[in-house]
Amino acid sequence: MTQASQTIPAGATEEAILAFGRQVLAAQPFSVLLGARLHALSSSGVVELRLPLTEKLLQQHGFAHGGVVSYMADNALTYAGGIVLGGMAVTSEFKINYLRPATGKCLIARAQPVHTGKSQAVCNCQVFDVQENGAEKLCAVAQGTIASLPSREKSPS
Amino acid sequence: MTQASQTIPAGATEEAILAFGRQVLAAQPFSVLLGARLHALSSSGVVELRLPLTEKLLQQHGFAHGGVVSYMADNALTYAGGIVLGGMAVTSEFKINYLRPATGKCLIARAQPVHTGKSQAVCNCQVFDVQENGAEKLCAVAQGTIASLPSREKSPS
Amino acid sequence: MTQASQTIPAGATEEAILAFGRQVLAAQPFSVLLGARLHALSSSGVVELRLPLTEKLLQQHGFAHGGVVSYMADNALTYAGGIVLGGMAVTSEFKINYLRPATGKCLIARAQPVHTGKSQAVCNCQVFDVQENGAEKLCAVAQGTIASLPSREKSPS
Amino acid sequence: MTQASQTIPAGATEEAILAFGRQVLAAQPFSVLLGARLHALSSSGVVELRLPLTEKLLQQHGFAHGGVVSYMADNALTYAGGIVLGGMAVTSEFKINYLRPATGKCLIARAQPVHTGKSQAVCNCQVFDVQENGAEKLCAVAQGTIASLPSREKSPS
Repeated sequence: MTQASQTIPAGATEEAILAFGRQVLAAQPFSVLLGARLHALSSSGVVELRLPLTEKLLQQHGFAHGGVVSYMADNALTYAGGIVLGGMAVTSEFKINYLRPATGKCLIARAQPVHTGKSQAVCNCQVFDVQENGAEKLCAVAQGTIASLPSREKSPS
Repeated sequence: MTQASQTIPAGATEEAILAFGRQVLAAQPFSVLLGARLHALSSSGVVELRLPLTEKLLQQHGFAHGGVVSYMADNALTYAGGIVLGGMAVTSEFKINYLRPATGKCLIARAQPVHTGKSQAVCNCQVFDVQENGAEKLCAVAQGTIASLPSREKSPS
Repeated sequence: MTQASQTIPAGATEEAILAFGRQVLAAQPFSVLLGARLHALSSSGVVELRLPLTEKLLQQHGFAHGGVVSYMADNALTYAGGIVLGGMAVTSEFKINYLRPATGKCLIARAQPVHTGKSQAVCNCQVFDVQENGAEKLCAVAQGTIASLPSREKSPS
Repeated sequence: MTQASQTIPAGATEEAILAFGRQVLAAQPFSVLLGARLHALSSSGVVELRLPLTEKLLQQHGFAHGGVVSYMADNALTYAGGIVLGGMAVTSEFKINYLRPATGKCLIARAQPVHTGKSQAVCNCQVFDVQENGAEKLCAVAQGTIASLPSREKSPS
C-alpha cells in the first residue's frame, strides 16, 4: 500500500483537490474492497461518493447492509470535514438515521460542512439509493464531527 | 444465497438462539466479505461479534477503517435489539463515538438492550480493539434504536 | 392547565394548524416558563420557534444554557414531525451539535421533516442566535426521530 | 450574577470538587430556574444531578418536558467531562434516546466519562424518573462529547 499524501497543498486547484481525494480513497484498502468511487470533491468540502451495489454488499434480505450505508456516510463526512480542515482529519463521531432499505444499483453519499471551527468541522450527509431508471431515493441522513489530527489520538475513518 | 430463517422459534434454547444468529450472519454477504463471526448471543440480547483485522479492512494510515468499526457497532446493535424484539428487526438509527484508532489484531463489539418497548429497543455497544497480547482497548461506543419490522419501511442492517 | 386539543382536524387550514400549534405550546408549562413562541407552522411540517434570551436562560458565562438550545431543538423537531404524523407524536431520540455560544437577543429554531414514514418521521433542525442587529448565526444543528403515539410508551416532549 | 471560579485547583479534595460543582450550578441562572441540585460529583467524573418535577417543568400531557430531560442529560454530561478535563469545558454534542415518559416526583441524571483524551472526553448518562415510592425508572440515555475550552469557540452548557 502506497502511503497517500496527507495534506492538501496550499492554493491547490479544484482538480488537484479531487485528485488528492481520489489518492486517499485508493490508499484505503477497505474502500477499494467495497468499490467506492469519489465522484466530486471541492475546496468548500462538498463531496459526492458513489458505490455500485454489488451482491457482496448486501444483507440477508437483499438490501444494502446497514454497515455499507454507514460506511458511505462516515467516509463522505470525513472528506467534507477533512478538506475544510486542511487534509489531516478523522471522524470523531456521527449519527445516522436509516430511512428506507437501499435496493437500487448504486449508493450516492453527498456531504458538506455545516460549520467549520479551528480544530473541528460539523458536517451533514445524505445517502441516496439510485434506482435502475436513475431516480434517487433518500435512504439515510447523517450528521457528525470531523476533527483535525494534531496527534493520533482519535480513530480515523 | 440461502434465505435465513427470519424469526426465532418460541422457547428456543440459548444454543438455538446462537445458531439462529450465526445463520443470519452467514446469510449476510457483507458480513461474510468482512469476516465477522458471532461469538455469543443470548435470549436477553447480549451479543458479542468479532472481526479479525485483516489488511483489507484498513484505511490509509493502517488503522481499521471507521466504516469497519461502524459496521461492527451497527450489526451488534441490531442483534441485541433483534433478539429481544423476536427476530425481525432493523436498525432505525445509531450514534457512534470513535475513541482511538484500532490497530490490533481483532475487533470485538459487545452490545445489549438498555430498554425494550413493544416495537423498538434502545441498545448500546462497546467496540474493543484486541491487542497482540490479548488486551482489549475500548475504541468506540455506540447507542441506537432497533425497530421491529412490520413492513419493509426501514433500512435493515 | 387547559388540556390542548390532541389531533389536527382533517383538512385544517394553514391558519388552523398554526393556531393548533400555539394551543399546544400554551399548554406546555415548561415552554411558558421559558417564554417560547411559535412563529410559524405549516401542514408540511416546516416550523419556526422563537425564544427571547432573557437572563434566566443563561449559564455561568452569560451564554444561553445548552439545555435551552437543546429544548429549542427538541421542541421544533417534535412540531415538525408531529404535524406530518397527524398531531399525536413524541420525540424518540435526537442528536445535537453545538456550533458556537449563543449570546444574542433571541434564539430561532427552524425544523422540517426529512422523511415521513407510517409511524415515524425523521426531521432536522437548525438553531440560530439572533444578534442585536438582526443577523442570524447558526449555533446548533440537530437531527432526530419523531414517533406517532399509539400508546403512552415513549417520553413526550 | 457572581462569576463562578472556572478551574479546579490542583489536588482538590472530593469535598472541594463537589463544592466547586455546586458553585458552578448556582452560577447558572437556567439551572436555578429549573431547580436542579448537584447531589454528587467526584474527581473521576461520576456525577449525579437531581431535579424535583414541579408543575412548571411539564408538557401538555403532564409528563416532564423532553427539554427538561435533555437539560438534565446535557448538564450531567458536561459535569462528567468537565471534571476530568480540568474544569473549563463545554458540550460539543450529544445524543439522547427517550425511553418512557417521566411522571414521577424527581429526575436523577447520572453520568460518567467513558474515555478521556487530551482535549475531549466522551461520556454517557442515564436519566431516571423517581416514583413516589422511591423506585427509579430509567427514562432516557445519552452519549456525548465534552471538549476542553481553550477559546470561546463552542457553545457552553
